This record gives sequence, structure tokens and C-alpha cells, in this order.
Amino acid sequence: MALPADATLADVGEFGLISELTALFPQGEHVLVGPGDDAAVLRVRTGHVVVSTDLMVEGRHFRRDWASGADVGHRAAAQNISDINAMGGRATSLTIGLAAPADLPAAWALDLAAGFAEECGLVGASIVGGDLTRADQVVVAVTVLGTCTQSPVLRSGAEPGDLLALVGRQGWAAGGLTVLSRGFRSPRVLVDAYRRPTPPYDAGPAAAEAGATSMIDVSDGLLSEVGHLAAGSGVAIDVRTATLEVAEPLVTVGAALGAEPLSFVLGGGDDHGLLATFPPGQVPDGWTVVGEVLDGGTPGEVTVDGAAYEGATGWTHF
Amino acid sequence: MALPADATLADVGEFGLISELTALFPQGEHVLVGPGDDAAVLRVRTGHVVVSTDLMVEGRHFRRDWASGADVGHRAAAQNISDINAMGGRATSLTIGLAAPADLPAAWALDLAAGFAEECGLVGASIVGGDLTRADQVVVAVTVLGTCTQSPVLRSGAEPGDLLALVGRQGWAAGGLTVLSRGFRSPRVLVDAYRRPTPPYDAGPAAAEAGATSMIDVSDGLLSEVGHLAAGSGVAIDVRTATLEVAEPLVTVGAALGAEPLSFVLGGGDDHGLLATFPPGQVPDGWTVVGEVLDGGTPGEVTVDGAAYEGATGWTHF
Repeated sequence: MALPADATLADVGEFGLISELTALFPQGEHVLVGPGDDAAVLRVRTGHVVVSTDLMVEGRHFRRDWASGADVGHRAAAQNISDINAMGGRATSLTIGLAAPADLPAAWALDLAAGFAEECGLVGASIVGGDLTRADQVVVAVTVLGTCTQSPVLRSGAEPGDLLALVGRQGWAAGGLTVLSRGFRSPRVLVDAYRRPTPPYDAGPAAAEAGATSMIDVSDGLLSEVGHLAAGSGVAIDVRTATLEVAEPLVTVGAALGAEPLSFVLGGGDDHGLLATFPPGQVPDGWTVVGEVLDGGTPGEVTVDGAAYEGATGWTHF
Repeated sequence: MALPADATLADVGEFGLISELTALFPQGEHVLVGPGDDAAVLRVRTGHVVVSTDLMVEGRHFRRDWASGADVGHRAAAQNISDINAMGGRATSLTIGLAAPADLPAAWALDLAAGFAEECGLVGASIVGGDLTRADQVVVAVTVLGTCTQSPVLRSGAEPGDLLALVGRQGWAAGGLTVLSRGFRSPRVLVDAYRRPTPPYDAGPAAAEAGATSMIDVSDGLLSEVGHLAAGSGVAIDVRTATLEVAEPLVTVGAALGAEPLSFVLGGGDDHGLLATFPPGQVPDGWTVVGEVLDGGTPGEVTVDGAAYEGATGWTHF
């Protein structure tokens, strides 16, 4: 690429940057019309389309001094693809809207796009369209489309007696974010987990095949997501802490910062693991049973080891 | 609704506001799962899905003192639905991302949603999902999905000898924006045209049926959009000003402000009319022939009455 290293969006211009960006986006064979027209056109093989959208705002969801453009791109793609995963679907196509100040380095935007494309490549999804405009703050708006080959798994199907199970890392990204927010850069494994989550993309469709009765991805905090399953299904769910893995780096960080390591696991989000409920005997390999849907209890209520939990359960946006 | 008139987003909270918002969104029968889960699930009847995305940023694409929340909602929906119209498709489903300061009045956000829903209702489209988060500035991120019953009409199919035709109002919104930016509120008909464009939603599919060879919606400026058709198709296009209607209120405003009324028509966007090319004899009713694809000329070049145009051709974002 011929861009000077210090070129800004204003230097490169809207159409110049769009052309550089779209060159980074290979198109799958399902993409009949890719970026560059009024709309993209996609071939859909099944009769169902699954769609979700997310915003990431600089200073709130990411900081440019804490993560590279490529990191932010990986994370923006991952959190959106994960929403399709949590329905039991597979992502096929994404759009990106980028609002940014005119003095944003063009290299940052290209780095964002490259990270985004790399993450999408993991699941064979294409970036089929986007929008670019000026704003005071960097905002990344992503929409993801996917398909389900079986019925989608909702938040509302959990039944008393089902087991609650978790797949994927949990608490690592929260540990990494805490480390960064205290001005540290290590343990590196946690910081990297925050910068580039590694969601279990194949686990969603596999859970649907296995008969998951409800499912959600852990984006805002484990207990708050369990709460969404409980509320959506009108059931009470108990989480058993003895079954939750507290990774060794979280123990180290907890000791160093005077925090309870388990709090990263119970309240942390951003790893984009999956939580699902299954009838007993149907929990797939790779999942850990971490609780159960109670027979009785207050609908919508989540308990931890049989009691109310007093710590932070997740993240709220206002 | 039980919200106090001066309640802010922070007062109402994320989940409270989402619940108020989704109550405003009726769901079509193609929506198998609407807002509230990890993703929406849509039934798709044809094998093609058309998708487009747009960002609107406060202070750049709208001002809260120039347009109500409902106006901004109407306009955000209209400009997105219009992108599907410009492919010859029909919009079925939209997502909205709203990033806003915590002190934004909740009533403004609800007003935005109501206007958005009303505009979508004109074409029978549903608002199937969204995201809400805090930011320094109001940003509205919209993605629209639609279907085409015939092949989509691209920007790239114009042929020498085709006629260039326009449908819908042109220049009115630019006139309204100019009036507002000079501190006036009239002519009201122009201000209203800016606040709530009225795109010719049925004209896109009809043009596709009639054999349009290329098509685009006029969002950034008539001549710049003609330029996209010329570049996309590798042809030269001449626009004939004598065929362009200069509406009477534009003449009034031009006289009052010392502006050339035709400049609103040639350089103005935001009305979301359609420009398309047709083989001679195939221009549908309701369209006005405003130029032609030249036999020869420089590919990508747009001329006005046979000569280069020196005025503003449209809007650039950086």
C-alpha cells in the first residue's frame, strides 16, 4: 500500500480509504454483489437468516492505547460472530460502519479492517458492505448475518432439571481489562485474551444439534447472562462455584491486586464463551456443567451455591 | 408511557429504554424471532438477500435543533430503505444501533424510534434488532435487509445510447438544509422535505421490471451519483439541465439567498429519489428523462449540457 505512515483519514479521503479497505475483504462465493454498490446481494441457501448488531465506542468499549486497530477489529468481529454462534448459527456476512475523527491515522483504520477480516476468515464470513463518516469519537458499528441449519436456540427454552453448561474461556478478558486499567501490561495471556477473544465458534451449532434448550453468549458477565436465560425461560438457575475453573493467571492477578479471583469469572464478560442449558445426559463434549435449572424457585432468579450473590454480575451501559 | 418528561437515558437505564423502544416495533410475519435474543431470526422467501448499512452522526448528518427525534428517525429509515429501493428490491428488516450521551432525553430516543417505525411501516419492514450504548455524541447506525424478486440492478450496467432518468423530488432537501443553516425555518415545504424525505419506494422494483440497466439513489448529490453510474459502467453521461425541474420554492430561496436555484438540483442530496438508465422506449411512467449515456466520451465522465460542470456535485465525508 502506498499510504504515507502518518496519513490521516482527511488526507486519504473517503473514497480513497474505502478503496483501500475493500481491497482487504475477500468475498465468499455466496456474495453475488460485494461492497461498492447501493447494497450488497447475498445468496442464502436456507430459508432462515439470523441477524444481530453491535456498537463499539472508543473510550467505552476500547482504548487505542490499550489495543491496536487490529485487536479492535478482531474483537468487534468476534463479539458479533459470537451472537450468531449463540443462536446455533454460522455467520456468513458482516457490515462495518466506521465513524471517526478526521485526524484518525488511516493506518489505524486499515489495521482495524485487517483484524476484522482475519477474524471473519476464521469462520469463512465475508465483509460485504460498510459506511465511513466523520465523528468526534471512533464508533465501530457492526451487523452480522448468518444462517441456521436447524431451529435457532433461544434464551427462552430452559426447563427445570436442565443442566447449565459453559464452553470457552471465562474471566480471562475481565482479568486482562482489570490489568490494563491499573496501568499494567501483564500477565500477557490475560491482556491478549481481552484484546483478542477466542470464542468457541463451532460450539453453538454443535450445542443446537445436541439439543440445547436455551443458549446465550457471555458478553456482559456470566451471572448477568445466566440471569437472561432465567428471565427468558421463566425459571430459577443455581450456579455452583466449585465447578467454575479459575485460571491460574486470574489467581495471580487477584493476589497482586487484592481482588477475589472468582469475581473475574462470575462478573466478567468479553470472552464470548457460551452458556447453554441441556437435558441431563445431553451435554456435549467440551462443555462444563456449572449449575442447574431449579425445580421451583423464583422465575428469573439466579443464585450462587444456593444463595443470593452480592458482587457485580455484569456490565450496564447507562 | 410512564416516563417523566425530563428523564434521561441514564435515568431510564439501558434495559428500561430497550423495553420501551421494542414496544414501538411491530413485527412482520417473516420475523420468527424479534428483538431481545442474541440475534433476530427472519424467514426469507427468495434466495437473495440485499443488505446495506449507514451511519448518521449528530452535528454532521442532523442537528437536534433542526429536526425532531421523529424526523431523524424518519430520515434514517428512509435513507436506508432507499438503498434497497435502488437495487430494485424491497426492504423487509432493519436494525438500529444508537450511541448517545447519558443525558440525552429518553423522550428523544423514543421519538426517534417512533419516527423510524412509522417510516418502516410505509414499506411493511420490521425493526428486528438493535444496540444501545453510551457515547459523547449521538450516532445512529442502521442496517437494512431486503429481497429482490428479480436480478438486482447495479451501478455498472449502463450502455451507450441508454437514457438517464430521474424519479422523485430533487433539490428540495438541499434547499431545506440551506434555509436551516442560514437560521430560517421557511419555506416550510423545503424544511419538511429535508426533515422527512419521501423516497419513491415503489419506483425501484418497477424500474427493475422495466429493464433498468443501472440504478442508484440520490443521497449525496445528483451529479456525484451520476458520476458513480458513469464510473461503475465505464461510460460517459451527459445531463441536460433544461429537463430538470427546478421547483418554485427553490427559485424563491435562490432569489432570497443569492444562490443559483439549479445548484440545489445538481448538487443536492438527501431527497433519495432514484437515477437510472434505460434503453430508449423503456422508461417507466413517472420518470423524467434528464440525460443520456453518450456513445463515446471519457469513461466515468459526467458533463452538464455537453460541458464540464464547475459547481459542487455532492458531499464528501472527509
